[in-house]
Amino acid sequence: VTKIEPRTLKGFQDLLPAQALRRADLIRRLEDVFRAHGYGPIDTPSLEYAEILKGKGGEESDKQLFEFDDAGGRRVALRFDLTVPLARFVAEHQNELVFPFRRYAIGHVWRGERPQKGRLREFVQCDADLVGAVGPAADAEVLVLMCAAYAALDVGRVTVRVNDRRILNGLLESLGGGVPVAAALRALDKRDRQGDDVVAAELGAAGLSAEGARTLLDVTRPRADDEECFAVLSAAVGASAVGRTGIAALRTVLSLVRAAGHAEGSVRCVVDPSIARGLDYYTGVVMEARLDAVPAVGSVGSGGRYDDLASLYTNTKLPGVGCSVGIDRLLVALAEPGAAAPAASRSPAEVLVVHPEEGALASAFALAGALRAAGLRVETFPEAKKHGAQMKYADRQGLRLALTRNADGTWHGKDLRDGTSAALGTEPDVVAWALARRG
Amino acid sequence: VTKIEPRTLKGFQDLLPAQALRRADLIRRLEDVFRAHGYGPIDTPSLEYAEILKGKGGEESDKQLFEFDDAGGRRVALRFDLTVPLARFVAEHQNELVFPFRRYAIGHVWRGERPQKGRLREFVQCDADLVGAVGPAADAEVLVLMCAAYAALDVGRVTVRVNDRRILNGLLESLGGGVPVAAALRALDKRDRQGDDVVAAELGAAGLSAEGARTLLDVTRPRADDEECFAVLSAAVGASAVGRTGIAALRTVLSLVRAAGHAEGSVRCVVDPSIARGLDYYTGVVMEARLDAVPAVGSVGSGGRYDDLASLYTNTKLPGVGCSVGIDRLLVALAEPGAAAPAASRSPAEVLVVHPEEGALASAFALAGALRAAGLRVETFPEAKKHGAQMKYADRQGLRLALTRNADGTWHGKDLRDGTSAALGTEPDVVAWALARRG
Repeated sequence: VTKIEPRTLKGFQDLLPAQALRRADLIRRLEDVFRAHGYGPIDTPSLEYAEILKGKGGEESDKQLFEFDDAGGRRVALRFDLTVPLARFVAEHQNELVFPFRRYAIGHVWRGERPQKGRLREFVQCDADLVGAVGPAADAEVLVLMCAAYAALDVGRVTVRVNDRRILNGLLESLGGGVPVAAALRALDKRDRQGDDVVAAELGAAGLSAEGARTLLDVTRPRADDEECFAVLSAAVGASAVGRTGIAALRTVLSLVRAAGHAEGSVRCVVDPSIARGLDYYTGVVMEARLDAVPAVGSVGSGGRYDDLASLYTNTKLPGVGCSVGIDRLLVALAEPGAAAPAASRSPAEVLVVHPEEGALASAFALAGALRAAGLRVETFPEAKKHGAQMKYADRQGLRLALTRNADGTWHGKDLRDGTSAALGTEPDVVAWALARRG
Repeated sequence: VTKIEPRTLKGFQDLLPAQALRRADLIRRLEDVFRAHGYGPIDTPSLEYAEILKGKGGEESDKQLFEFDDAGGRRVALRFDLTVPLARFVAEHQNELVFPFRRYAIGHVWRGERPQKGRLREFVQCDADLVGAVGPAADAEVLVLMCAAYAALDVGRVTVRVNDRRILNGLLESLGGGVPVAAALRALDKRDRQGDDVVAAELGAAGLSAEGARTLLDVTRPRADDEECFAVLSAAVGASAVGRTGIAALRTVLSLVRAAGHAEGSVRCVVDPSIARGLDYYTGVVMEARLDAVPAVGSVGSGGRYDDLASLYTNTKLPGVGCSVGIDRLLVALAEPGAAAPAASRSPAEVLVVHPEEGALASAFALAGALRAAGLRVETFPEAKKHGAQMKYADRQGLRLALTRNADGTWHGKDLRDGTSAALGTEPDVVAWALARRG
């Protein structure tokens, strides 16, 4: 018989047990943080009318759409993010929702990108948004959420860099030259890769004086101290009202993050006026997270404020602020040398109940049931393999404890981490021993 | 400006907060049960080469495929279940996996069915499979898992009906007439809808005597008592070896389920030789779950043993046993009158911290941080709306507690369930009060 070659599409991935367990664990921690901040889940279809998704008009994302005609002749496409579906959802259900509306969504998205390291054609996105609220409390809430998320993910030291779009607007206003913000953003975005000279030349071409370009590059440099940073920015925006508003807002937001207890610890939240990416679609606060151990992997999460979420679908004006945690990018980053990747486990179980002689199977099932009722995660070996083979399996799976039934109905426990053994009596003794060993 | 109409495709659904929270809660309970039994997650792509998914050759599922050419000219399709991808995954990664291999998978699947109540074109499937093990311990393990799953889901009384394909094989062998099993299954499957006479006529046309048909219909009737059922079946299979094996296996499996502590409680596990659906692709034990309160909704979960999972992709023989919990069908069933649907909540939060005058925002953020650190789920109202509007919001969202800051920096607590109030002092007092009220 001819076999079909088992393979996946380019840019699509299988997650093996250890990887999938790790991702599921990260997602669960994220969900707990989202819920602790009052964000509940919603779900929207993976497949939408293509016109809904193409409405944004982004040429790049349109080109990357997985788009086709369904069996009923409808033009449909797989979602490329969770924000456009949120906009459609909020417009469609605005009368059923309570505003301010907080939601999180965790789901797969699809982009026909050129596959490369860390870029997949299908990946999981984890978004949280607060829709229908403006002001510092709303902005700060999402920043607090992002700090709390990375702290809970326990992925080593993380720096969340914050900026406000209005500061750049103010700087350009104050520096004169009538440089369009979009052109300045395009230029500043090249800073990391191409250096200050290239950026200065490009800013000049856009209308900024040589001195203005130098000032802009200087004042938007990251600084170790937030207060110093604010002082430099305040001087540079001068009398620009929008610039001063942006600085004041950022200052308030940071003080609220500190008040919520997120100023220190494993997640550091700092002002960074050099953040350009993201400023083009955000209108106020903007944030970006990187792992301190592997900054070169780039952003593992971002967010910011937008003025009007659902303007393509409704006349209701819905301002909002949101963030997105890049789970798959995070997993790539954690696999890099130096990152804080914890030991991976192949199995969620802790305990193996060794398969006894056939007649005693009921006692093995009873013990497994009792151990689970006590909160332990337990496998019973499903076949009558040799004892050595079963212990080898427990070892390969990374299980901690193995329990073998003696002929007289008592049990023998083995701790596979330290190699110690224990002669155990009946079920309650075994449960107590397993709970104690688990620590 | 012309607006795009916000709408979803036929057969696709938005889940609003209360529904999505409910489904997420059910899924989390399921994951906990799967893990407690040693099943870990894997993930496979939503999109596969069409030839992988069409390999099964099922005409019905082929017709329902969402299939298209991707931008690279590859013929691709959205998965219609999680079993075919599991087969491909196991064949592709067999050298990286440890057998016996336990995995669960929770993910969306797509079927271009005619949309009708409880039938969606996109829905979530929750599967658990044990691959590479045969015998009663393996079969019983999956039945235990299914019983534990429905008990943990807390959806009212559930009956899990169990049968073994080999019993029907034995009955047909013993009754003579050379009736093909497939024909008998097709006939028996019509029993509920068309009645015994139609089935008997069809069995006669397939070669069974009138008396044989009567016997088959009689012995496969469900009975209140498992032992009575086994006695009737044993007499009917007579000397048929395969029939006797099936009965003995089913008896052992049920005794192990009882040993694991799943004989009573909200989930009842009973022998039912009338189960026909599913027997055509399963080869041994087969199971099906229904809610006692709304049996008419039909199966909310099923499973069974198969002989060779991945034969289309590999020569390695991989027998297995698995089950699938129909989460979306369950949600439909729970919405029926009489079902045990618990109260739905719009928000995961328990506590609202009322927005204070602007200057005191930091104290509100500090309190929210302290409450969350104590394990509470907390919203801060993001804008300076009127107090009454904020309390109305808390009420609509179903929050339990609201905390308002007094001008002197102390707090006022209100329990929105019973309407009681409390004058509270500083942060630690508030945290203690909220924890006590939450109960």
